Amino acid sequence: MRNNIEVVKTLLEALPYIKRFANKKIVIKYGGSAQTSNSLKEQFAQDIVLLHLVGMKPIVVHGGGKSITNLLSDLGVDTKFIDGQRVTTKEVMRIVEMVLSGEINKEIVSLLDNHGSKAIGISGKDGGFLKGMPKDFENFGYTGNIEHINPEIVNNIIDEGAIPVIAPIAGSSVMGHPGFNINADLAASKIAVAMKASKILFLTDTPGVLNKEMQLITNLSIEKTEALKANGTIRGGMVPKIDACIEALRGGVKKAHIIDGRVEHSLLLEILTSSGVGTCIEL
Amino acid sequence: MRNNIEVVKTLLEALPYIKRFANKKIVIKYGGSAQTSNSLKEQFAQDIVLLHLVGMKPIVVHGGGKSITNLLSDLGVDTKFIDGQRVTTKEVMRIVEMVLSGEINKEIVSLLDNHGSKAIGISGKDGGFLKGMPKDFENFGYTGNIEHINPEIVNNIIDEGAIPVIAPIAGSSVMGHPGFNINADLAASKIAVAMKASKILFLTDTPGVLNKEMQLITNLSIEKTEALKANGTIRGGMVPKIDACIEALRGGVKKAHIIDGRVEHSLLLEILTSSGVGTCIEL
Amino acid sequence: MRNNIEVVKTLLEALPYIKRFANKKIVIKYGGSAQTSNSLKEQFAQDIVLLHLVGMKPIVVHGGGKSITNLLSDLGVDTKFIDGQRVTTKEVMRIVEMVLSGEINKEIVSLLDNHGSKAIGISGKDGGFLKGMPKDFENFGYTGNIEHINPEIVNNIIDEGAIPVIAPIAGSSVMGHPGFNINADLAASKIAVAMKASKILFLTDTPGVLNKEMQLITNLSIEKTEALKANGTIRGGMVPKIDACIEALRGGVKKAHIIDGRVEHSLLLEILTSSGVGTCIEL
Amino acid sequence: MRNNIEVVKTLLEALPYIKRFANKKIVIKYGGSAQTSNSLKEQFAQDIVLLHLVGMKPIVVHGGGKSITNLLSDLGVDTKFIDGQRVTTKEVMRIVEMVLSGEINKEIVSLLDNHGSKAIGISGKDGGFLKGMPKDFENFGYTGNIEHINPEIVNNIIDEGAIPVIAPIAGSSVMGHPGFNINADLAASKIAVAMKASKILFLTDTPGVLNKEMQLITNLSIEKTEALKANGTIRGGMVPKIDACIEALRGGVKKAHIIDGRVEHSLLLEILTSSGVGTCIEL
Amino acid sequence: MRNNIEVVKTLLEALPYIKRFANKKIVIKYGGSAQTSNSLKEQFAQDIVLLHLVGMKPIVVHGGGKSITNLLSDLGVDTKFIDGQRVTTKEVMRIVEMVLSGEINKEIVSLLDNHGSKAIGISGKDGGFLKGMPKDFENFGYTGNIEHINPEIVNNIIDEGAIPVIAPIAGSSVMGHPGFNINADLAASKIAVAMKASKILFLTDTPGVLNKEMQLITNLSIEKTEALKANGTIRGGMVPKIDACIEALRGGVKKAHIIDGRVEHSLLLEILTSSGVGTCIEL
Amino acid sequence: MRNNIEVVKTLLEALPYIKRFANKKIVIKYGGSAQTSNSLKEQFAQDIVLLHLVGMKPIVVHGGGKSITNLLSDLGVDTKFIDGQRVTTKEVMRIVEMVLSGEINKEIVSLLDNHGSKAIGISGKDGGFLKGMPKDFENFGYTGNIEHINPEIVNNIIDEGAIPVIAPIAGSSVMGHPGFNINADLAASKIAVAMKASKILFLTDTPGVLNKEMQLITNLSIEKTEALKANGTIRGGMVPKIDACIEALRGGVKKAHIIDGRVEHSLLLEILTSSGVGTCIEL
Repeated sequence: MRNNIEVVKTLLEALPYIKRFANKKIVIKYGGSAQTSNSLKEQFAQDIVLLHLVGMKPIVVHGGGKSITNLLSDLGVDTKFIDGQRVTTKEVMRIVEMVLSGEINKEIVSLLDNHGSKAIGISGKDGGFLKGMPKDFENFGYTGNIEHINPEIVNNIIDEGAIPVIAPIAGSSVMGHPGFNINADLAASKIAVAMKASKILFLTDTPGVLNKEMQLITNLSIEKTEALKANGTIRGGMVPKIDACIEALRGGVKKAHIIDGRVEHSLLLEILTSSGVGTCIEL
Repeated sequence: MRNNIEVVKTLLEALPYIKRFANKKIVIKYGGSAQTSNSLKEQFAQDIVLLHLVGMKPIVVHGGGKSITNLLSDLGVDTKFIDGQRVTTKEVMRIVEMVLSGEINKEIVSLLDNHGSKAIGISGKDGGFLKGMPKDFENFGYTGNIEHINPEIVNNIIDEGAIPVIAPIAGSSVMGHPGFNINADLAASKIAVAMKASKILFLTDTPGVLNKEMQLITNLSIEKTEALKANGTIRGGMVPKIDACIEALRGGVKKAHIIDGRVEHSLLLEILTSSGVGTCIEL
Repeated sequence: MRNNIEVVKTLLEALPYIKRFANKKIVIKYGGSAQTSNSLKEQFAQDIVLLHLVGMKPIVVHGGGKSITNLLSDLGVDTKFIDGQRVTTKEVMRIVEMVLSGEINKEIVSLLDNHGSKAIGISGKDGGFLKGMPKDFENFGYTGNIEHINPEIVNNIIDEGAIPVIAPIAGSSVMGHPGFNINADLAASKIAVAMKASKILFLTDTPGVLNKEMQLITNLSIEKTEALKANGTIRGGMVPKIDACIEALRGGVKKAHIIDGRVEHSLLLEILTSSGVGTCIEL
Repeated sequence: MRNNIEVVKTLLEALPYIKRFANKKIVIKYGGSAQTSNSLKEQFAQDIVLLHLVGMKPIVVHGGGKSITNLLSDLGVDTKFIDGQRVTTKEVMRIVEMVLSGEINKEIVSLLDNHGSKAIGISGKDGGFLKGMPKDFENFGYTGNIEHINPEIVNNIIDEGAIPVIAPIAGSSVMGHPGFNINADLAASKIAVAMKASKILFLTDTPGVLNKEMQLITNLSIEKTEALKANGTIRGGMVPKIDACIEALRGGVKKAHIIDGRVEHSLLLEILTSSGVGTCIEL
Repeated sequence: MRNNIEVVKTLLEALPYIKRFANKKIVIKYGGSAQTSNSLKEQFAQDIVLLHLVGMKPIVVHGGGKSITNLLSDLGVDTKFIDGQRVTTKEVMRIVEMVLSGEINKEIVSLLDNHGSKAIGISGKDGGFLKGMPKDFENFGYTGNIEHINPEIVNNIIDEGAIPVIAPIAGSSVMGHPGFNINADLAASKIAVAMKASKILFLTDTPGVLNKEMQLITNLSIEKTEALKANGTIRGGMVPKIDACIEALRGGVKKAHIIDGRVEHSLLLEILTSSGVGTCIEL
Repeated sequence: MRNNIEVVKTLLEALPYIKRFANKKIVIKYGGSAQTSNSLKEQFAQDIVLLHLVGMKPIVVHGGGKSITNLLSDLGVDTKFIDGQRVTTKEVMRIVEMVLSGEINKEIVSLLDNHGSKAIGISGKDGGFLKGMPKDFENFGYTGNIEHINPEIVNNIIDEGAIPVIAPIAGSSVMGHPGFNINADLAASKIAVAMKASKILFLTDTPGVLNKEMQLITNLSIEKTEALKANGTIRGGMVPKIDACIEALRGGVKKAHIIDGRVEHSLLLEILTSSGVGTCIEL
């Protein structure tokens, strides 16, 4: 029982955090190791279910990561990257969609269901949620940007008491069009703005934003962030994530976080405890 | 304008049919050639959208047909059938799900969206819609039966004014389970009962039920149908469809139809005109 | 069945028109031959019921035409017209109201009911829908104009899924007052504005607006319409209808149509086919 | 102010009566002198408006009385009665309907509107409220009985906060049928049952039920009432009213009253004071 | 029955007053003799219940008057007044709250319940209705002013069909704080503004505002009222009541009344008859 | 951060408990030391607020304990007990009510408000929630039993998202009656049944039910409990609590707990951890 008193005190420490985000929408970009390690997957599901049960409204946007590459390779489909962005041919698009909407999306839905929360998985094609346009058709094919978001379908899912799980595929108004492959970070950011989320978190395979001395920077303003980009401190794969953060903040989201998805329960650590894990960017 | 008067008169002929099914749920099992021919696909989408616009509530349940076999073959995955039923190994299950939930389901959603109706595609895993159990795990692996249906999620989709499009995959309550591959005909039938549908239609690659002389039988009672099964007139691939019809009728659906999906606009012909296309079975 | 395929194709041709006006309010001024010929009456009812069933919200405003004149004559009541407008004495007012609210209104309600749509007939006195004021009491007695519209009662009828059928009689706030006889064209136009209708159609005994060569003009802008009035091309009985059109358009209605009620199913021709019947005026 | 204290005390005396019928439906059959004398009309309107304002739900069913006879006579239409019941030819039916639905109904609506309560006048044809069948077509023509009541339309009017005013005309399911002329007493009684009214009052031109000595009987059971009918004490025009009372009571209405419509404010006297005016019949 | 006709006529005289305030919120500050005399209490309850039954929405705000002083004296707690305002020590605060929230509040609730209206008694602490701040802590201790009103809880009580009865105690956001003792006149005025009441009435032990000749002034503008305050005609205990009236009027309340609570049924006299009792102040 | 991972793991341990009682009503009888010690009060408030925030619906029923005795003594009012039950004279009743409804009730409301949950305090008199009858008027005066519960008012409070806090006072239908003093344990039990609660907990100043060796019994069936009562193991002040438990269980409550209110956070320990604190009785 001694131990259980510690349990109780711990719960009470979380009380102010629970209050702060009660009924708030929180977008989580799920990707990287958190999506591949079995134990991290389980922990991710527990975290989301706990946040949901204590009254928050998590919205999961996921990537497809290695599964896409693996299936393409198994099928012997050649795939090119230009400046780190995938060139999406029609053939690639079909594979991307099958993996994202058919495999990963349903795997997350099942995980959340097994841990006790109703989840509904959709792609941007469902209910006309996301309409896309080509980024640069000549060079990147069906890699696209989001042109329009209709938040109604996701609001309905939340109002039913379910957790929306979203594959970053956008539809097209053109008859017979295969749709668009959207960068998951940018999709998360646009969705956070359209859904009027309070917070967005990116689960990554890094500790967060690092300074020149490779130490974690825990808090950043937009101005400071842009300065770090300008002087090359933020570079490489971190740049699109940072851009997604800034877009979310400029669109009205209160806080954007780059957190380390390899750390167990990093989501709960960030949202329900005094530990900041990773980098928090604010307006 | 002479011609347009014919148009108007035609519309008025459809009036009694429109009235009869206004606000009624109609389950359509979509499969066969109607799912592979580009022009039949377009016509299917037009038909569903028209039914939806004039006040009916279509529910589409689809199979995956040749796409599954093709992808399995492209990936070099061996696949066996016992008595015409696929043996679903874990590896096969992954492919089945990707094709059904990720490719076919979203293709139908996009088709309906492009023709003007909001559609939302789900698999039985979403919102805990379908829970399955193994049919005979030793022999068939993850080929399963439906154990439980929670109609709430599909009712919510209908209440939002959208058309539900359902991939016949069922979830499991077992943590980490890949789910179940459900026969689409049986899924359609069980769903029609659970949703309290008025009518179920199976789009097939046959004219309907044929007698010994290979002529179409347009109307059948359950009793007569069972007699035809007993004497071998109904046999082969028609048997599971007929069984699905009987299960639907026994569960409260008013009429079950086996129609010819290769005939253009066969759905509208059946529902909105005096032509019966195919075979109608009633209690 | 060949024939039924034509039926189906025809239905599909109407699809874009059905989509365009789904859930839109459409005011129809019903009068002239369409109100006196038995076969035209039946066709009118079929047209309205079809529009209603496929999701539009028709609002019928009717005149009384010859029935009023006939009853006045049967009762030996003298009746005068000044500039084509009836002088409404108290005795005439009583007859006008009996014919409009008691005979014509209920006849239309029954017609629609018999063809399968719930209809509710009201006069402007019910629920305080229309309040009037005298146009020029000294010369025209109880012939009036509409002073105030309370759209709530008609919105309630529409929300119940019924078709409102409105007799153009307005009430008065003066205790014991017999009410006002309102010109049906003007009533339709004012009601279209107050109900925020998308479209108003006037069923008349003319092909539409004719040019000097007596040929039908199919499309007009308000400016052009006023020019035609100014130069006398539009004259006589067409003037008040044209004025009603312009008032509706200025009040926010998107399109106003003068159509030929003597042509069978002219309503459906106009709304659900590519044939424009009559004249369409737009802002 | 002395006087105003009396006013206040009087209001408080009415308090228990107001409480008793708060939110209760009360059907009032309006007819006889109360419908012809101008001052009684005004008092009737005041009474209904007061009952409505203090929270009751009055439903007015009216007859047409002398207006029908007068108009028939003005038009030179012969009209016959067999056993006190009008023979309704098609020509008579047209006149009956015009007077009831077009004149009397709207006059009552206006009266109530002018005294401050929203009222909506309908006939049994509106919204399919009353469907009739011939009583004895050969002998009585379009004089009918009520076959079916759909209370929804009247419930909607009450829920909008308006007073329903009902003309005793029933529709028919037969295409082109002129409808049925229903005895207003019987219509009131059937409507009271269908609407689950607590009380029904018949405004008549008699003090109530009289005994052999021509004295008013203030309270009656059904049994006693039937005995008085059997022994001829109740006879003539009182019989159909008594039958209507019994039908209402047998259908679940708590109390039926025959009251003297010639007495000023007899409605309020009966409902809001300790004075019973007329005869009260209970199960 | 002669007498009952007088009753009925009296009811009808009240009709315009009932109409005028139907569905309107009316704040009544209950205090003085009306709160201490048993017969005046009963009359107050009858008045409120009648107003409630005929469709108004009374909100009762009460003081505690002599009960507080008596209990303080019984407990031997010394209590001081500065400029007519109580100095509220922590000990006094506890007594004030017990009397107001525990005794008086529940007594009024029971009175209204016994006379037939559901009543719910709250203090400003309930549901965070009133938050206070000290007026001048050094001199007056826990005597406070209202800093914030959250009208939701009282609106919910009204929407449930109950009468809110409010003790003028305000809560504090400071942990463990005993709350604030609020002047009941000022509380009533602030609440009337926050609840968007149409009228506020103060039941006092005076005939109303008197002129220099000690005659009742029945009507006052704000300007005139302030002039009377400036020249000393309004003075003493009347000043805070007058200030409360002015605050209410400035906040949007239409009329404020100072009435004589010692006159039987003064509330009904004021609201439902032509007698003005006391002084009415308007913008 | 190491420490915060422990925090997170602790939260996750509570997850199954949170799920189990999500949306369930839980009645807590608050009394004894938990109501007098300042630190235990704070902890009680934290516990209730946490339960509320994570989705449960706590209903607090409180006693008055020593405050009543103290105030009676301060006022020099003699008070008698017969068989451990207070004799409630009219004078005592007034004091009881002031303390319960005016002091304790509002103190709890403020505590919960300060910790972040909206709370609304009522007594059984409000909204006619509890109607009482004398237990034995001759001997016990206004000490009463509950005769009728109207759960609507408490359900409304819960539906508003607030925590109901209930003083165990019942009203009477007798005009001018002071009401009844109800034993808080019995009130809690009756309320738990009427509100269809899942669980009832009694905070007491004992470790729970003890066996003859004075060791805690952690689980009991009703039968076993009654045996212990019969053989005198359960005796004294524990008897009425045990009777309240049995009444609740017989009325449909799933579990009843006697827990030690002197242990810090005993509520959370019982509901959200594996520790059973005290005795749990089940059907």
